[in-house]
Amino acid sequence: MRSIWLFRNSQFGRIDVGQSADRGTARRIVAAIRDQIHAGTYRAGDKLPSTRAFAAEWGASRTTVTAAYGQLIAEGYLTSSPGARASVAAGLVDAAALPQPARAAPRRLSAFAERVAAFPPPPVAAPPRLADFRYGDLSAGDFPVLAWRRALNAATLKRGTRLRYDDPRGSVALRSALQGYLWRARGIRCDPDDIVVVNGSQQGLDLCARLFLDPGAAFVMENPGYVLARHAFLAAGGQAVAVPVDAEGLATDRLPPARLAYVTPSHQYPLGAVLSASRRRALVAWAVGQDACIVEDDYDGEYRHDVAPIPPLRILAPDHVVYVGTLSKTLSPTLRLGYLVVPPALRRLFAEAKRLTDRHTPLPEQEALADLLASGAYERHVRAVRKRNAERRAILLDELTAAFGRAVRIAGAETGLHVVAWFDGIASDREAALAAAARAAGIGLYPVSPLYDPAGPVPAQAGFVMGYAALDPAALRRGVAALARVIVDFG
Amino acid sequence: MRSIWLFRNSQFGRIDVGQSADRGTARRIVAAIRDQIHAGTYRAGDKLPSTRAFAAEWGASRTTVTAAYGQLIAEGYLTSSPGARASVAAGLVDAAALPQPARAAPRRLSAFAERVAAFPPPPVAAPPRLADFRYGDLSAGDFPVLAWRRALNAATLKRGTRLRYDDPRGSVALRSALQGYLWRARGIRCDPDDIVVVNGSQQGLDLCARLFLDPGAAFVMENPGYVLARHAFLAAGGQAVAVPVDAEGLATDRLPPARLAYVTPSHQYPLGAVLSASRRRALVAWAVGQDACIVEDDYDGEYRHDVAPIPPLRILAPDHVVYVGTLSKTLSPTLRLGYLVVPPALRRLFAEAKRLTDRHTPLPEQEALADLLASGAYERHVRAVRKRNAERRAILLDELTAAFGRAVRIAGAETGLHVVAWFDGIASDREAALAAAARAAGIGLYPVSPLYDPAGPVPAQAGFVMGYAALDPAALRRGVAALARVIVDFG
Repeated sequence: MRSIWLFRNSQFGRIDVGQSADRGTARRIVAAIRDQIHAGTYRAGDKLPSTRAFAAEWGASRTTVTAAYGQLIAEGYLTSSPGARASVAAGLVDAAALPQPARAAPRRLSAFAERVAAFPPPPVAAPPRLADFRYGDLSAGDFPVLAWRRALNAATLKRGTRLRYDDPRGSVALRSALQGYLWRARGIRCDPDDIVVVNGSQQGLDLCARLFLDPGAAFVMENPGYVLARHAFLAAGGQAVAVPVDAEGLATDRLPPARLAYVTPSHQYPLGAVLSASRRRALVAWAVGQDACIVEDDYDGEYRHDVAPIPPLRILAPDHVVYVGTLSKTLSPTLRLGYLVVPPALRRLFAEAKRLTDRHTPLPEQEALADLLASGAYERHVRAVRKRNAERRAILLDELTAAFGRAVRIAGAETGLHVVAWFDGIASDREAALAAAARAAGIGLYPVSPLYDPAGPVPAQAGFVMGYAALDPAALRRGVAALARVIVDFG
Repeated sequence: MRSIWLFRNSQFGRIDVGQSADRGTARRIVAAIRDQIHAGTYRAGDKLPSTRAFAAEWGASRTTVTAAYGQLIAEGYLTSSPGARASVAAGLVDAAALPQPARAAPRRLSAFAERVAAFPPPPVAAPPRLADFRYGDLSAGDFPVLAWRRALNAATLKRGTRLRYDDPRGSVALRSALQGYLWRARGIRCDPDDIVVVNGSQQGLDLCARLFLDPGAAFVMENPGYVLARHAFLAAGGQAVAVPVDAEGLATDRLPPARLAYVTPSHQYPLGAVLSASRRRALVAWAVGQDACIVEDDYDGEYRHDVAPIPPLRILAPDHVVYVGTLSKTLSPTLRLGYLVVPPALRRLFAEAKRLTDRHTPLPEQEALADLLASGAYERHVRAVRKRNAERRAILLDELTAAFGRAVRIAGAETGLHVVAWFDGIASDREAALAAAARAAGIGLYPVSPLYDPAGPVPAQAGFVMGYAALDPAALRRGVAALARVIVDFG
């Protein structure tokens, strides 16, 4: 049951106010309510406002509103019982009367719009029944509900006397807390004013795309690589130049002239390589020589299992690197919290671009995160969730090895929340069919081929990106077992 | 006091793990902690992690970490007391050692970046002492803290088992609730899939700029008008064509060829006119003839004082209007909640653009708002805050009349949360000086001239946009009284 509130003026005429029991007004109220019920906007049982509230809203007298309600009750549109508010009677809604929109919108769209419209629509599918290996999802059970609620409530209560637009770079408290965190956790030394809080890393990528790329400008894209990064840069008009990755990460000896390079040096997405020290130096030298910007996406830097943390590129070349951090892998992708560490000379530019884009990131989440960082609760949470994901990873690796033995090769398991599973006995052109068979069996399985440059070749064998952070041990075991059956049947 | 967490690998070398009381590792731990204290990253009193947590993080033994801590205590860097964690000693921080960033960032920026960089930086000033008439601020006392907390907590608790990216258009619950609200409150009939939840109206404007404007494309801008809308369209490369407004709103007989028109028909910002019915029809006919898009910014549609609500343009031409709604004037500008109602044929385009931009708007605020809308609490809140702002407005108008009599002319008071006060006896070229004098007296006063097209003339007399929604009655009285003294002194 919802409460009804009527648009006061649905006939587009002025309503005379201040007349007691005005017949014209009452007639218009009756017509407006009837119209909305016929249109299916209101369902049986929806409550109307009190006559007092309705009268105040319409600028009519209560007598008039009471008369209108009485008429509608008499006509059978409303029902009422003593002491209760009038509500919509049952059996009146005509779903066929719902508005059918026309389809003749402006066709003069921008080149940006044309590029965006050309991207393939993302697949829409029901969640798989048994186990979904979709990368990027987290387990809701890992979210620190109590600490977050406490921090959020504290933020809601500690407001000043005015609600006003904040600094486009984000709250001072959060940027200070992030400065300390980045130094402690990643060795990055920066000023809080180098930090721009963004709505998740995707907004950070989009800002970089807009600030560094003109239509036709080349950008370096890891191949394979992160599709939504590629799309953000393509949408800005950039021309992707695919550079292959191998066991040492991006092949820096094959870097072309470009304005921007998008890289995931700590844990190449999706293949998992760590960019080697010599290639880090080569990449930085390239950026300085080209006067280009490196966009360093440290999307899962908090998760390392067998290796020491990798010092970010930002440390080597603070003036040529935009470091992209995210809370989507440690807290939740639904909070849309990320941050950039930008070259000091570009502080004002990024701030102003962020301001034009959406003023600033919502404050409540920022303040809650600042609180968690300041209290140490965030780092405790990261240690706990890192341990849990290490366990998930161990189970997945064990199960895959037990189920497939040497028929599967695992890549990129040293850090992060996903692996790539290569099936050398299955040709890559059968990836989609295998994923469909898996889905029919209740398993969400995601081929690696779509992450390769669309203009180039893909590997000969089938590979799948397998995220494990949202799955509990039972689901991991169930998922791999079901997958094994699918592959046997698949032949 | 903060907790310290150290970057494990600040010397960029691998750390040998699994060796008990390893001297090399202990030396590196000592050096890393010392380095961070010298650099001023840590303050006196900051706590170090427990030896157990530190050891786990570094992959060293507890014996090694205990040895390192002992060394630092002996050197005077740390202090400890029985049963407490070690903390940083006082008197060690050298602020001069803080990093001084270089200034040699990439100079190859996009044309978008050049345009953004050319906008004048927003003024930065301390909040005025007595009364700030800045438009857009709200009183924190008007925020429905309890209802919001309850709704937000409910949203935090009712998650499913997975945290995953949501629909780029926003939560289904919120879009359904907004559909009903828009029909009840504004007479707009739309499908929930026509609605795109955005991070405040600014993001809605930016999306329109990107989707409709190519560099060089003309857009119609009300003159005077909303500066951040103008900037969003200019940043996309659009060419502003200023069209004057009069008592009936935008002068539709002077509409040039253009791809987009930005209008505030319910309450022209800043002058307050309501676009007349005949001009509404003329504007829509122009848009259809031009195959152009009307961006209808209904920034304060909830606040009407003396007049009936105005049916939005969206009702007249759903295929040529993007309706922009916001919660910044009824809840808080810091939540960054707004929404678009887009032409049905452009649903997928807007959704995909939003996805590339930042995936989706943060879910917690969306779910809390959906809850408030569904329970009727939002509309109750709007009625309450509308009443409070009507009282503020009455006080402001009374005080201005009492203080200035016929020396001040008030425009645009019928709706909204601001008025424009024209001082016919003061020339407009003295606006800035008067605002500075007011600021010196503790009053935030905002000239209207900067809202006019920079290439054209401004009115002869001084005018000020006066927002009143953040001021209590005493501050309004105090503010106008102080302003009267300033103007007397100003001569």
